[in-house]
Amino acid sequence: MKHYLQHDPWCIVETDFHREFNEVTESVMSLGNGRHGGRGSFEEKYSGKTLQGNYVAGVYYPDKTRVGWWKNGYPEYFAKVLNAANWIGIDIDIDYESLDLNTCEVRDFRRVLNMQEGFLEREFVAVLKSGKELKVNAKRFCSIVDDEAGVIRYAITPLNFDAKITVTPYIDGAIRNRDANYDETFWDEVRKETGYGEAFIELRTRKTGFHVATGMCVEIEQDGVKVDYQSQPIKYEKYVANRISLDCRQGQETAVYKYAVNLSSLNYDPDTIIKEAHKSMQHITRKGFEKMLLEQKQAWADKWKTNDIVIDGDVAAQQGIRFNIFQLNQTYTGEDERLNIGPKGFTGEKYGGSTYWDTEAYCLPFYLSTADQKVARNLLVYRYRQLGKAIENAQKLGFRAGAALYPMVTMNGEECHNEWEITFEEIHRNGAIAYAIFDYVRYSGDEQYLADYGLEVLIAISRFWSQRVNWSAAKQQYVMLGVTGPNEYENNVNNNWYTNYIAAWTLRYTIEAVAKVKSLDPTKYAELIDRIHFREEKELATAQQIVEKMYLPEDRERGVYLQQEGFLDKDLMPVSDIPKGQRPINQNWSWDRILRSCFIKQADVLQGLYFFEEEFDTETLRRNFDFYEPMTVHESSLSPCVHSIQASKLGMHDKAYEMYLRTARLDLDDYNNDTEDGCHITSMAGTWLAVVKGFGGMRVGADGQLSFSPYFPSNWQSLAFKIRFQGSLLQVTTTQQNVAVTNFSSTPIRLSVLGKVITVAGEGEELVAFVPQ
Amino acid sequence: MKHYLQHDPWCIVETDFHREFNEVTESVMSLGNGRHGGRGSFEEKYSGKTLQGNYVAGVYYPDKTRVGWWKNGYPEYFAKVLNAANWIGIDIDIDYESLDLNTCEVRDFRRVLNMQEGFLEREFVAVLKSGKELKVNAKRFCSIVDDEAGVIRYAITPLNFDAKITVTPYIDGAIRNRDANYDETFWDEVRKETGYGEAFIELRTRKTGFHVATGMCVEIEQDGVKVDYQSQPIKYEKYVANRISLDCRQGQETAVYKYAVNLSSLNYDPDTIIKEAHKSMQHITRKGFEKMLLEQKQAWADKWKTNDIVIDGDVAAQQGIRFNIFQLNQTYTGEDERLNIGPKGFTGEKYGGSTYWDTEAYCLPFYLSTADQKVARNLLVYRYRQLGKAIENAQKLGFRAGAALYPMVTMNGEECHNEWEITFEEIHRNGAIAYAIFDYVRYSGDEQYLADYGLEVLIAISRFWSQRVNWSAAKQQYVMLGVTGPNEYENNVNNNWYTNYIAAWTLRYTIEAVAKVKSLDPTKYAELIDRIHFREEKELATAQQIVEKMYLPEDRERGVYLQQEGFLDKDLMPVSDIPKGQRPINQNWSWDRILRSCFIKQADVLQGLYFFEEEFDTETLRRNFDFYEPMTVHESSLSPCVHSIQASKLGMHDKAYEMYLRTARLDLDDYNNDTEDGCHITSMAGTWLAVVKGFGGMRVGADGQLSFSPYFPSNWQSLAFKIRFQGSLLQVTTTQQNVAVTNFSSTPIRLSVLGKVITVAGEGEELVAFVPQ
Repeated sequence: MKHYLQHDPWCIVETDFHREFNEVTESVMSLGNGRHGGRGSFEEKYSGKTLQGNYVAGVYYPDKTRVGWWKNGYPEYFAKVLNAANWIGIDIDIDYESLDLNTCEVRDFRRVLNMQEGFLEREFVAVLKSGKELKVNAKRFCSIVDDEAGVIRYAITPLNFDAKITVTPYIDGAIRNRDANYDETFWDEVRKETGYGEAFIELRTRKTGFHVATGMCVEIEQDGVKVDYQSQPIKYEKYVANRISLDCRQGQETAVYKYAVNLSSLNYDPDTIIKEAHKSMQHITRKGFEKMLLEQKQAWADKWKTNDIVIDGDVAAQQGIRFNIFQLNQTYTGEDERLNIGPKGFTGEKYGGSTYWDTEAYCLPFYLSTADQKVARNLLVYRYRQLGKAIENAQKLGFRAGAALYPMVTMNGEECHNEWEITFEEIHRNGAIAYAIFDYVRYSGDEQYLADYGLEVLIAISRFWSQRVNWSAAKQQYVMLGVTGPNEYENNVNNNWYTNYIAAWTLRYTIEAVAKVKSLDPTKYAELIDRIHFREEKELATAQQIVEKMYLPEDRERGVYLQQEGFLDKDLMPVSDIPKGQRPINQNWSWDRILRSCFIKQADVLQGLYFFEEEFDTETLRRNFDFYEPMTVHESSLSPCVHSIQASKLGMHDKAYEMYLRTARLDLDDYNNDTEDGCHITSMAGTWLAVVKGFGGMRVGADGQLSFSPYFPSNWQSLAFKIRFQGSLLQVTTTQQNVAVTNFSSTPIRLSVLGKVITVAGEGEELVAFVPQ
Repeated sequence: MKHYLQHDPWCIVETDFHREFNEVTESVMSLGNGRHGGRGSFEEKYSGKTLQGNYVAGVYYPDKTRVGWWKNGYPEYFAKVLNAANWIGIDIDIDYESLDLNTCEVRDFRRVLNMQEGFLEREFVAVLKSGKELKVNAKRFCSIVDDEAGVIRYAITPLNFDAKITVTPYIDGAIRNRDANYDETFWDEVRKETGYGEAFIELRTRKTGFHVATGMCVEIEQDGVKVDYQSQPIKYEKYVANRISLDCRQGQETAVYKYAVNLSSLNYDPDTIIKEAHKSMQHITRKGFEKMLLEQKQAWADKWKTNDIVIDGDVAAQQGIRFNIFQLNQTYTGEDERLNIGPKGFTGEKYGGSTYWDTEAYCLPFYLSTADQKVARNLLVYRYRQLGKAIENAQKLGFRAGAALYPMVTMNGEECHNEWEITFEEIHRNGAIAYAIFDYVRYSGDEQYLADYGLEVLIAISRFWSQRVNWSAAKQQYVMLGVTGPNEYENNVNNNWYTNYIAAWTLRYTIEAVAKVKSLDPTKYAELIDRIHFREEKELATAQQIVEKMYLPEDRERGVYLQQEGFLDKDLMPVSDIPKGQRPINQNWSWDRILRSCFIKQADVLQGLYFFEEEFDTETLRRNFDFYEPMTVHESSLSPCVHSIQASKLGMHDKAYEMYLRTARLDLDDYNNDTEDGCHITSMAGTWLAVVKGFGGMRVGADGQLSFSPYFPSNWQSLAFKIRFQGSLLQVTTTQQNVAVTNFSSTPIRLSVLGKVITVAGEGEELVAFVPQ
């Protein structure tokens, strides 16, 4: 845990420069706009600890797999999110000294991520070895209006000297991924150009052949007036720059405006991409920095209008939730169905791949409730389009007849993760993809989706489950051997309760969905079963048999489900018994010790009870929560949110608040000591869930009715959140006295608040009495 | 399976050149002398499939670990057996054509490994593209008399032309390991020298800093007469050669003698190693090729005198056992206690490390029975010397108070394997190291070894087991969670029967050994317990409690021990049900499919019943054998030998013979389709066991008495093997009529044959009537 960032409702603030945490700060202060983005690194040279990272959505490299011992079925490559050309760089040299915060004295340092208006600002005074004092103010953003653009205003003021200052804005494509498996470079240069105050470079990724054109254009102002300057173009291998020499006087502010564009061949023909980059550049330089910044503020204000969650009385909690919402919006806009939500977004390059089960299990509900319905639908269609690859993936593992295993990690539908215990065995991901279809249909009421896309995916996943179980002669039940559940601190276990349950549930839901589609759209159904050779009677009978005879391990005495067979043989003890200094255990214990311990990385049985809560009574949830919560170390970012929601439901408000802070401030406080690699983007959706489903108690019943049962931690004054539901935009505002539901849409909506069914008129508000809990 | 090598009692013979299997042949025809060795590659250039490999004992490189995802406790490096300078190379050029069997027509090809006399010979006629026909005869050996030397006689005869032939003998140190993790080179050049017909090069390994000096000296004979020649020295980076131009006449034989030496800094000061190499060279060139070859033949004859096993009536079986004995003798001589028995010996570079549990479990009994007692003792002392590292290794995994976990793979005592399921979990290896102490003491009667070394190791291993188990409240017994047993086709299982059994056995044996040493050598005992802080009463009480309360899974109904908990939930089926073309399954199935299948890579429960056979009755063995044998795929080279021995014991002679052929001819017939990587050296000791313990029925009872109950397959005429036992050399000869035991030593020996106790006089022979079975 780290506490060096200031609490503030709208900003992330670092005062004083924390060199030792610089990579953490860079992650937290990342900027993005769904199309490109990068870490909150410095523009000027920095010789200390830094991970310069700039990323362009959808551009990846199939890095050669690195494994200790090759196993059949491993993918040949691991898709790396590519560190792309650094467009933020501006070197500053005064006489023979470089500005480098690692080697000079730093005064009055302040770095601020302004989430309300969407920019990053930094101020400091650098005292160089020569005694020269230089004041710097740098402001940067990735425009969400012009989503290929990024701009910087970098202002320098000599405080105690006059000098010629050399300013060198550059684009550097000679970058590597820190986590490249074989220290290879992933980019080749295609072409480069330099002109007066401008430079363009086009790079191509090896193997995948993506082209990315990056351009920059530089304007200079002194005393607020645009000035002409001498510019010396520089070209090195994969590097272009302009060296600009400026006479700077003591007390005079010189502002360097660096406009940049990043275009990728996902959207442009490589033949004309440089030309297009010039066009984009013209477009933004005509607008100019101030107008772009104004538009940026306006666009963020619009986003906050439908996305914001307001917590009164608890700045840390308020800052946490806004940080999560801000980063989610920076990562994924839902406008491009080829994209998905990478685990680090544009904040780092670890993990690789862009799509995990996180998308379905955690992110989908966020986008369902905060964005246009087509955004969530696009996320489902993304998987539908990769169904063929999922079938191929299952075939590689020996499955047949149209069985699909969706990849653990992917860029294009192919599996690209390579640890056998994850890749081959963490198959519950398949269940989450089925569950997302259910979740979407329930929330949106869009049953036609089943006929159009959903059922085909469900059948393919069900075929997988039917082949993956086997009949145990000893148990006279179906068992599922050799899996890894959501709790990755257990590998290759037999009968993971969660996996067995979601498998049986998928089969059950597929049976229902078949019936639904048959009656809803018989033509489509007939076409589908013919195309995928679905032998309805036989396959459904098998499914039904497995549903009825699936083995689900439990301890009847304790009244709890067992995470997997044999769990009770462990030395059971609470997390609080782990000796001080040994957490997180994944950074302190050897893997075998973790595996045989009782400690749980993330919600597993509880994940199941969360997804399928309507199938279990509250006392069952309580017994399982009481049993598992004390053994859960939450070393996955995806864990505390589920526990928080359940604690809310169980009335364990302190626990719910503790877990909420942990998920909301995971990166801000660096709980798991790994934020330096990047932020935990997908778990941020979980934070949102902890507020809306946890504190807000939002649910959609089997009958499609929306309900809320809000409460909030005792130190809060009020909580207000907005959600979209089937075309309506609603706001739920809870104070100590009452709950107000505002309906911004034109049609009335019937819903339940604290168990009371009410109808909120179109563009109306209803107040419901509130009993503080 | 491949059947292109000829059956022959003393030789391995390839007639016709099998390009497609060349790497297999290279492995099989490897040469070595315990000090250095290499694969049976060609001297002249070969552009086809080949793995040139030359290896120097004890010289290794700590290659940077390659893993998919780093886990705490992983070793930083993987010790690679180093491919060292190629000293065999002789390029042949005629006018502008190179001799290269991949590009010319090959006639009358024959490659022979002569195991009786210890050399490799190759003959062929090459028809070059120009039509020139060149006859070649090449003979090569690694001297077991001058163990730093290797020599080649390479004779060429133009059959249809006169020409200047350029002969370029060279030493090439610019070699890489094929399995280098990051394609790095591991050698740096220190110095090189060339002189008239000679060249020396000294290379140093990176990181480990081993120096190896390799030298060559060339002599030429034409028509059997030594001739002078012009020699042009060549030096490239890490490469030295002499280019020799010779006038060759049609029908005239030109013989190139290439003498080579390989000295390593294990035995020489790097400052003088080149000088020493010159001395060694002088020594062998003075002897000359013919004398060296004569000495080689004589030395091998001496080895065979005490090592040979003679099978009459079955050439394939005879060839198999001799091949195994030959390769074992080439790999390890027992003369240097710093060395051990690498899994590939000098025949390949895969796997890395020199020491596995194979040494204790399989090789020790071979050396106990065929070599001086000090050889086996040296193998135990090797582990004793690495006890400190084993304790460090356990500490890295969280164990304490002197607990030791010996490494899975090592060069110097440090663990250097890095798959968690093996490195951290295949802990039964610790048991084999304890068992080897027991085995050695029982066979040799050398109880003092316990006081001198053995007990300290036993206590350290027992401390590990005591900490590794945990008390299961559910079972009210001790359990061992998260292990991998000998059957590596199961990972991270709970309560592997073999591991639990050998752990409890170790604790039991340690309790006995404490009592033994206390009475045998109380002073040493007192010194030991003080030095290692052994709290006798407490530690022994804990051990006793675990012995009494260890959980050992079994199926009482079937009367079999369960390989691990949950085994009976699998879909049980015999290996014969695996569809054709899908074996070996490890080359055809994905890992998860293998793991959840019932198929067993190698003896696991049966391995335990083999080690501890006196603790189980024959019917128990039979039930377990009948249960597990049909599910065993024997895709480990270490498996068939155990099954063969047990089938012999159970009177299942056909099965015993089938398994014997499989172990004896594993590499000759390339059963597992992996001999191209090198031979399975350690399993060769298992082959020997299958003959001596299986067909010969040799045992040493708890009372130390030797016994035999020989039989043999019905197609054999006779079987004769020699063993050393407590100072005596015995031969057991079995025919269809009788068993003869010959005692070559001067003192009488009392032993049991077919249940009858006899005394064989010193230098006498006893005949025992034999009932064919």
